[in-house]
Amino acid sequence: MTAPYASILAGLPASTPFVGPETLQRQLGRAYDLRLGANESSFGISPRVLAVLQEEAAHANWYCDAEHFELKQALCGTLGCDAENIVVGEGIDGLLGLLARAYIDPGDAIVTSLGGYPTFNYHVRGYGGRLVEVPYREDFHNDLEGLLEAAQHEKAKLLYLANPDNPTGTLLGREAIAGLLEGLPEGCLLLLDEAYFEFMPPEALLPVVAEDPRLIRLRTFSKAHGLAGLRIGYALAPAEVSAALDKIRMHFGVGRLSQIAAAASLGDQAFVSGVIAEVAAGRKDYEALAESLSLPFIPSHTNFVALDVGSEERSQAMVRLLHEAGVFVRRPGVPRLGRHVRISVGTRAERALLSERFASVYQEI
Amino acid sequence: MTAPYASILAGLPASTPFVGPETLQRQLGRAYDLRLGANESSFGISPRVLAVLQEEAAHANWYCDAEHFELKQALCGTLGCDAENIVVGEGIDGLLGLLARAYIDPGDAIVTSLGGYPTFNYHVRGYGGRLVEVPYREDFHNDLEGLLEAAQHEKAKLLYLANPDNPTGTLLGREAIAGLLEGLPEGCLLLLDEAYFEFMPPEALLPVVAEDPRLIRLRTFSKAHGLAGLRIGYALAPAEVSAALDKIRMHFGVGRLSQIAAAASLGDQAFVSGVIAEVAAGRKDYEALAESLSLPFIPSHTNFVALDVGSEERSQAMVRLLHEAGVFVRRPGVPRLGRHVRISVGTRAERALLSERFASVYQEI
Repeated sequence: MTAPYASILAGLPASTPFVGPETLQRQLGRAYDLRLGANESSFGISPRVLAVLQEEAAHANWYCDAEHFELKQALCGTLGCDAENIVVGEGIDGLLGLLARAYIDPGDAIVTSLGGYPTFNYHVRGYGGRLVEVPYREDFHNDLEGLLEAAQHEKAKLLYLANPDNPTGTLLGREAIAGLLEGLPEGCLLLLDEAYFEFMPPEALLPVVAEDPRLIRLRTFSKAHGLAGLRIGYALAPAEVSAALDKIRMHFGVGRLSQIAAAASLGDQAFVSGVIAEVAAGRKDYEALAESLSLPFIPSHTNFVALDVGSEERSQAMVRLLHEAGVFVRRPGVPRLGRHVRISVGTRAERALLSERFASVYQEI
Repeated sequence: MTAPYASILAGLPASTPFVGPETLQRQLGRAYDLRLGANESSFGISPRVLAVLQEEAAHANWYCDAEHFELKQALCGTLGCDAENIVVGEGIDGLLGLLARAYIDPGDAIVTSLGGYPTFNYHVRGYGGRLVEVPYREDFHNDLEGLLEAAQHEKAKLLYLANPDNPTGTLLGREAIAGLLEGLPEGCLLLLDEAYFEFMPPEALLPVVAEDPRLIRLRTFSKAHGLAGLRIGYALAPAEVSAALDKIRMHFGVGRLSQIAAAASLGDQAFVSGVIAEVAAGRKDYEALAESLSLPFIPSHTNFVALDVGSEERSQAMVRLLHEAGVFVRRPGVPRLGRHVRISVGTRAERALLSERFASVYQEI
């Protein structure tokens, strides 16, 4: 007889937060022509990052710096906070797992938006938390009042919010987020997922106040910096939280090349600014596509746009037909949001091909 | 007020499994001349791996394959097992964390050798497990009878064993491991850490029987393959265990470049064989060093050798003085084992310099 699993695992159903494009390609039997479903950056990596990766590849035999010293120094310079306010982790996914583990006792209530980030939900369930999901508002913004009411009513330990939001792309300004923080019930912490913050107007961004005990912010090098395959992100947190996470984090978990690449990318703001400008142009192209087909879309502040194709059934059909046409996109799996097809911004050439295939498939349904 | 931490974290003391060489270098104020303390491979990475890393670096913007399909296919070919018997993870460290989470309920007894792998202990404590530590035998082999007795007596869920062993380098043959499996009490699983298996005589290796429900084996690309900085390893486990781990693992946690590098390295057995031969030669050099100083040493089947400098105090002094002389080595922190200084096998040039500095420092103490 095998050893019995821990009680939480024993009670979990089989689940996967996402089916990846490689898996879908194997089902399709060939490579996608367009990979625009996971909000990866189509604009690659900085030439500086490429150069250090090629140079440092020969030192892949060394373990990483467990303290992430050089990357933290680079981040402190950019953010104006102390090293002890930064927790480097294996992308936002890894950090969300760490935070779920740090805060959740089985049965604890955790509040999020219904249709929000599936990997967060996966971690919450995986640590025995009780998810309380609040529907988006009619205008596809997160329902801050509803989230706060749920947090209060359920005595939630954590409130998760993505801003700019995924999968809608909507943005809440700094006053709205500051108001949310003010309204948090005692004993509830805001996990603010800022994976897409580089794409929002800088003036809308909440200033960094690292020692706010109600707030942990999460950021990644996977989007504007184009380092999704290297698994690296960071949290901004009070020093006391950072010290607590040090008791359970994987000290040598963030790869050596990942740290070096992230630090190099921070040093190439011109590259990142170029990506941001291209992404802005790409959103306009997708908006034009939507208008040409008379489809509503959700104005986005991220590197994707969600187009409303009219119904969940039509959205499902679109994603399936696009898949068969060699195009990887995704759709939200919850009511109302599910009318949309979410398309990551590709290069100019990718956008042109996407527009063509999307319009063609749309005629079919 | 911040949200209260989960009960396990709230009860944990601050701890770090290892202080890394980068941290120690910052304390020293300069880079080490010799980095021989973390059992990294001094023989770098395969030229094939270097080529694919340099080629694929430009695709670091893509998330990884969550199913590790190509790497698993390569492993299946080498190992003669099915893909469903392989769990790819963020090195053995990551897999040990996953397994601790999968099996440990707070208070569960977990048996290991006293002075064994600190990162395993860190994970056990981090999930609320109760560590039961059994001293090594007089000859520095793991005490299999003692481990089994402890597992029986404490109703342990997991028994951890490294073979070849770290930090001693000793080896138990296939009959000994088979006997240990036979003797496992009901409901106890053997976690067999084979991080150094490439360095042992192949005929001593337990055959792969993936569906043995009492056994999970752990392997890494960090040692013979020289990919420590890319964080990748795998577990061999029954399909049912692999499916259970799928419910909690970080599906996109193992980087894209890491997977590609590992698969490429598996395809270059000539390189790995060369590393193994160099490591064997290096162990002989360290044995000769020990003999030249009339020091006992533990015969090793790994990429390191532990030299007995006579007492724990002398060992502490050696490590400190070597550090000051620009040499990174480590010592076990428990009684009796702690008389040793553990030195990773370096290149021929590194070994020559190490021998010189070691002998010189040894004269001082």
